[in-house]
Amino acid sequence: MRSLVVKSCCLFFLILFVSQHYSVSATKKLLDPKKPCKRFVLYYHDILFGGDDVANATSATTANATGLGNTNFGMLVVFDDPMTKDQHLLSPPVARAQGFYFYDMKTTYNAWFAYTLIFNSSDHKGTLNIMGADMMMEKTRDLSVVGGTGDFFMARGIATFQTMNQEGTKYFRLKMDIKLYECY
Amino acid sequence: MRSLVVKSCCLFFLILFVSQHYSVSATKKLLDPKKPCKRFVLYYHDILFGGDDVANATSATTANATGLGNTNFGMLVVFDDPMTKDQHLLSPPVARAQGFYFYDMKTTYNAWFAYTLIFNSSDHKGTLNIMGADMMMEKTRDLSVVGGTGDFFMARGIATFQTMNQEGTKYFRLKMDIKLYECY
Amino acid sequence: MRSLVVKSCCLFFLILFVSQHYSVSATKKLLDPKKPCKRFVLYYHDILFGGDDVANATSATTANATGLGNTNFGMLVVFDDPMTKDQHLLSPPVARAQGFYFYDMKTTYNAWFAYTLIFNSSDHKGTLNIMGADMMMEKTRDLSVVGGTGDFFMARGIATFQTMNQEGTKYFRLKMDIKLYECY
Repeated sequence: MRSLVVKSCCLFFLILFVSQHYSVSATKKLLDPKKPCKRFVLYYHDILFGGDDVANATSATTANATGLGNTNFGMLVVFDDPMTKDQHLLSPPVARAQGFYFYDMKTTYNAWFAYTLIFNSSDHKGTLNIMGADMMMEKTRDLSVVGGTGDFFMARGIATFQTMNQEGTKYFRLKMDIKLYECY
Repeated sequence: MRSLVVKSCCLFFLILFVSQHYSVSATKKLLDPKKPCKRFVLYYHDILFGGDDVANATSATTANATGLGNTNFGMLVVFDDPMTKDQHLLSPPVARAQGFYFYDMKTTYNAWFAYTLIFNSSDHKGTLNIMGADMMMEKTRDLSVVGGTGDFFMARGIATFQTMNQEGTKYFRLKMDIKLYECY
Repeated sequence: MRSLVVKSCCLFFLILFVSQHYSVSATKKLLDPKKPCKRFVLYYHDILFGGDDVANATSATTANATGLGNTNFGMLVVFDDPMTKDQHLLSPPVARAQGFYFYDMKTTYNAWFAYTLIFNSSDHKGTLNIMGADMMMEKTRDLSVVGGTGDFFMARGIATFQTMNQEGTKYFRLKMDIKLYECY
């Protein structure tokens, strides 16, 4: 009887291991969106270059809007924007966001982003690489954190955007809620 | 004898666990390309804006081809394209593809894509972020699904492109065979 | 006594399994940056098209620098560059790098890259997709390998850039030290 227990116990775990190691054809893990392994909220400030404000501007249009609709379709902006811990534009930046966005809908304002968050402080050194659709008509929208380096080595996660302020095309401020689910 | 079995059984699993948890310096998992955890085939329709077809066009050239060769090198197109379940352009879209491509070879037509598939239906809500080379001279070519949100939270996988139709630069249709290997 | 050992042994592994499978809210794995599962060093050669050198040029400016500063802010370059095993431009390429970079700082030269390494040799067939900030003022800088296909199916890792040579805007050579930490 005891021997049977021993054997069945061994067999049970053997099967578990084998199934785990050798028949994994795709990963179905349980990650809870509510439980990131790292999380921080930062604010992104974008001041579009107008021609005579080199000192203040943090981004510039490098390809103009096309004639497809009236909502800037195709307008491509390169940015090097400060990221702050609170909503104040003039707070000391804790990171930079370097990358680009472009507008991509003909019926409404809608954008697509790819950029790197660059941290170089005593708190964090490293980068996070992010891309995805910024569906501006939604209250919040999720982009993908597709990789990281330095303190964020090999990280992955979600960056949730929320527009906090919009002053025409001149200035806008986004809340970026960065949630990492793979931390190493 | 029985005791020996018990002990060796315990030891066996202990070693397996320890090796699994503590000596992992890099991940070498067994994923089978033939066994995605989720798969769907969609068709991408791109109608390039010609100047007077705002109603029909789904994409527009935002940076023109350079003079490097005669195959559109450098031409950058922003798109907001419908994705359908069958090959018909006028079938109800089940998703949008928002992003850009550009041509990048001087000897032949060849492109590079980065975009987001946006699902907003009763079937799926969420996005998939995709990037990679579209080597148009190959019958099929693989791009990377580098992240996902919503129903596709943290997904990764492969998007296989196949050109189904090409009418000059005005219209083309791609089959996109999306295979996810990390599902959460 | 023996029975107790058996039971506690079973219980121990059962708990381990359950904790491993059901309470994972986010992944905290131990990956050692010094121990990639695959690594190779390649050299990237970029020869910017000047108008009359179609035969030699490997890249072209598709959107010009903006007026935001004097360090090419916004200048967008599409490339199809050879990758060699040693530093010689004329060595046989072992891969192509297809993608784009743009300059994105108003006070210094600084760039952002997204591209695909395309391997099509007897050694390797497949692609690696890479994106991130190229902070040119740093001696080395890390970008993310966000996905792979073919021989590099589902790979992730780090690409470390180092500038080896820079001849104005005409030619530059980067060392790319590719380290994969997820191999399948």
